[in-house]
Amino acid sequence: MTRRHISQFTVEWGDCDPAQIVFYPNFFRWMDVAALRFFRAAGVPPWRELEAQSGIIGTPLVDASARFLRPATYGDVIDVDTTIDEWRGKSFVMSHVIRRDTDVLVEGREVRVFARRHPEDPSRIQAVVAPENVRQWCA
Amino acid sequence: MTRRHISQFTVEWGDCDPAQIVFYPNFFRWMDVAALRFFRAAGVPPWRELEAQSGIIGTPLVDASARFLRPATYGDVIDVDTTIDEWRGKSFVMSHVIRRDTDVLVEGREVRVFARRHPEDPSRIQAVVAPENVRQWCA
Amino acid sequence: MTRRHISQFTVEWGDCDPAQIVFYPNFFRWMDVAALRFFRAAGVPPWRELEAQSGIIGTPLVDASARFLRPATYGDVIDVDTTIDEWRGKSFVMSHVIRRDTDVLVEGREVRVFARRHPEDPSRIQAVVAPENVRQWCA
Amino acid sequence: MTRRHISQFTVEWGDCDPAQIVFYPNFFRWMDVAALRFFRAAGVPPWRELEAQSGIIGTPLVDASARFLRPATYGDVIDVDTTIDEWRGKSFVMSHVIRRDTDVLVEGREVRVFARRHPEDPSRIQAVVAPENVRQWCA
Repeated sequence: MTRRHISQFTVEWGDCDPAQIVFYPNFFRWMDVAALRFFRAAGVPPWRELEAQSGIIGTPLVDASARFLRPATYGDVIDVDTTIDEWRGKSFVMSHVIRRDTDVLVEGREVRVFARRHPEDPSRIQAVVAPENVRQWCA
Repeated sequence: MTRRHISQFTVEWGDCDPAQIVFYPNFFRWMDVAALRFFRAAGVPPWRELEAQSGIIGTPLVDASARFLRPATYGDVIDVDTTIDEWRGKSFVMSHVIRRDTDVLVEGREVRVFARRHPEDPSRIQAVVAPENVRQWCA
Repeated sequence: MTRRHISQFTVEWGDCDPAQIVFYPNFFRWMDVAALRFFRAAGVPPWRELEAQSGIIGTPLVDASARFLRPATYGDVIDVDTTIDEWRGKSFVMSHVIRRDTDVLVEGREVRVFARRHPEDPSRIQAVVAPENVRQWCA
Repeated sequence: MTRRHISQFTVEWGDCDPAQIVFYPNFFRWMDVAALRFFRAAGVPPWRELEAQSGIIGTPLVDASARFLRPATYGDVIDVDTTIDEWRGKSFVMSHVIRRDTDVLVEGREVRVFARRHPEDPSRIQAVVAPENVRQWCA
């Protein structure tokens, strides 16, 4: 059984554009929140604590995509249903299915890596294999 | 020869997250602006004028994706290089290559449709075949 | 006794800037949401319904201000405590006190008007005296 | 003669709300950019360089306010005309007048402090008197 987490959002007036529908980058903003809530719900500590333990500063994106099936407008309550579909070496694939009730609005997908500051140049970041305890929390 | 348009942006402080790099949904925000500037540069009138002529109210997204190759931070000047790669029936594919100088940071892609209000229910929108003059402007 | 409504938000990673604190325009975004939720909680229908009844399309801002007393960071849960402090002729003053637990982070204030489309030029908007039923709902 | 700097922005589709006008927190976002550009134009180095020299990490807000006189919509080009109106002990007052051509749309005002990390607790920030060279650059 795969761990999943549902994050709920209300679409606000300011999230919508002059066509009265969600300005699409906001769906990625909600996916980013949902990714984080997935980790928190799984027991992964906040990045600032994880950094102290393991050097991990977050999970930057390698790839993001979304299929937009139905629009949403202000007042709509949406659920982002998040799972990790695949662990690769240094990256992992998150799926975010966004629904309003039972209607699927958006099918999103993020490929992320666990990153730490580069040991020789702290202004750069470096992908690392996901720590084993993090993988176990998320399984 | 394919029409292309380059839109330039400065990455601002507020576009970046606590990891000091661009919060990724902003790259989609810039692609959306670049899509519009592409049409304006090609001679397509603002949507509010086009609506009066043809009923078209904009070009909502069907699909959006991005590969993130290198991060950007505040103060960076980025170029979004936009082309239409393909015209399908009611949709078209835009490519957005985002560079800082010659470094490619992001390879983005949007599939959009031309939309008008649904004739029987103005609260809904409907995809339509791109008007011939719009296709000619963009060719 | 004055009606008040508390709207709760979680500060997200993408709401914060490279100084790791909330990028301040987001506090105004939350106040805008809180203003709307205040009206919904008071029984005022969504703008799109109110427009059909009364022509009101929303409550645009005349003035907004905020004093920033303490910063907030990602993971913080904040409460926006909203009241209407004063009804003037065509405008009203909303107060938004933003707290994390009992600490006041921001004292915000918005002056808004009820607006409808200008009867002679629908591209313009026009302030109107608040409908009596709306004032009663909010009292 | 007081130093002033004009920052120009185009109002984009995604900056506007379903009432077709700028979603007001965006005006504060543009003021924040204008504040930074004012400093850059005056010769103040980027915060990340200034931090190395002087510990200054930025200019967080103490107070922000705006009077909204006329709305703006997508496609509008706006100028933010920025000056420092007053230097106080640890704070300073910036004025941002936002115009479309000669029409004043917004009169904004920010009170900011120069801040550094607290020497005993780097998770906190601390207001400091503006470095003399910074004040001279901005005069």
